[in-house]
Amino acid sequence: MVYSREELLDIVAAQMPAKRWEHVKGVMETSVILATRFGGDPVKADLAALLHDLAKFWPIEKQEAIMIDNGLNPELLEYDKQLLHAEVGAFIAKRDYGVADEEVLDAVRYHTSGRVGMTKLDKIVCLADYIEPGRSFPGVDTIRELAEHHLEEALIAGFDSTITFLLEKRKQIFPTTVLSRNDLIRQLGRT
Amino acid sequence: MVYSREELLDIVAAQMPAKRWEHVKGVMETSVILATRFGGDPVKADLAALLHDLAKFWPIEKQEAIMIDNGLNPELLEYDKQLLHAEVGAFIAKRDYGVADEEVLDAVRYHTSGRVGMTKLDKIVCLADYIEPGRSFPGVDTIRELAEHHLEEALIAGFDSTITFLLEKRKQIFPTTVLSRNDLIRQLGRT
Repeated sequence: MVYSREELLDIVAAQMPAKRWEHVKGVMETSVILATRFGGDPVKADLAALLHDLAKFWPIEKQEAIMIDNGLNPELLEYDKQLLHAEVGAFIAKRDYGVADEEVLDAVRYHTSGRVGMTKLDKIVCLADYIEPGRSFPGVDTIRELAEHHLEEALIAGFDSTITFLLEKRKQIFPTTVLSRNDLIRQLGRT
Repeated sequence: MVYSREELLDIVAAQMPAKRWEHVKGVMETSVILATRFGGDPVKADLAALLHDLAKFWPIEKQEAIMIDNGLNPELLEYDKQLLHAEVGAFIAKRDYGVADEEVLDAVRYHTSGRVGMTKLDKIVCLADYIEPGRSFPGVDTIRELAEHHLEEALIAGFDSTITFLLEKRKQIFPTTVLSRNDLIRQLGRT
């Protein structure tokens, strides 16, 4: 079953409380702006942003069951449960909503953790998730300023803020986030 | 060829400038104190500390050649060259100085990066390297205070200071250090 964008808007909105849906609309708007600014594909950015938090408010047990039953990335199960919704969302978007574009699905899948070798679309959705207008956390304005001119610099600052937050909160740091940050810095070092 | 402790003192001192030798003596002294405090083996702690920076001032090219020629941990070669001396030091201590105690060699090998599943001896030498009396960096006094009573808490604070430093300096973060910190926090969560 393949759904239209209008149908997906209704489907996704129904998966979460109104406040989170406002966040999703903010990420859609910001992803399109970033795609236009940095030479990405605004249509794909819009769709990936629409789908990115699809499973965010599903019960954790349901998310875990989908991960296990379908053999999705087992490393995620050892870390914060907030990481699961990205992988589960990409899986459900493909299986249940007929989204076939792997680039869009990857941007959903890696929007929280990042990955080594992020595509432009991955970077756009991940950064939009940090800076959409509804976001408020220490350092977000610095990331927004960087995002005016530099996609990768802004995203590095975003990952750095996540790692610093997890250090301060004494929480597990997902190693892929560190590897993603290292990789972005390496990429910039080469240019 | 097996050397006595007295001979090793002379051999190691000859591998580095006088200032670094002062550091090594500080790590020896602190490692013995920590071993006594936390139920470790002071003799092994003394020996591992004596050996820990054996290769620190060897030319990087020589360290890289030893790594490559002997198939030592290839992941290290992708990160800061300052990581190599620990692996090279353990290798040389065994091959050239006849140190056979694998527990001591491991404490040398992992004194900079840490590892998942650090032994008590690993923790002692790694922490002593952070807090020996000659060390001075932001936060060291907090780590020293923690080390009065809690080996793991102090070491987590040490790793956190390293990760924060690398974030601020925009340097590559060696993922094993993050995994080591995560692992220590998990261990404490279980107790």
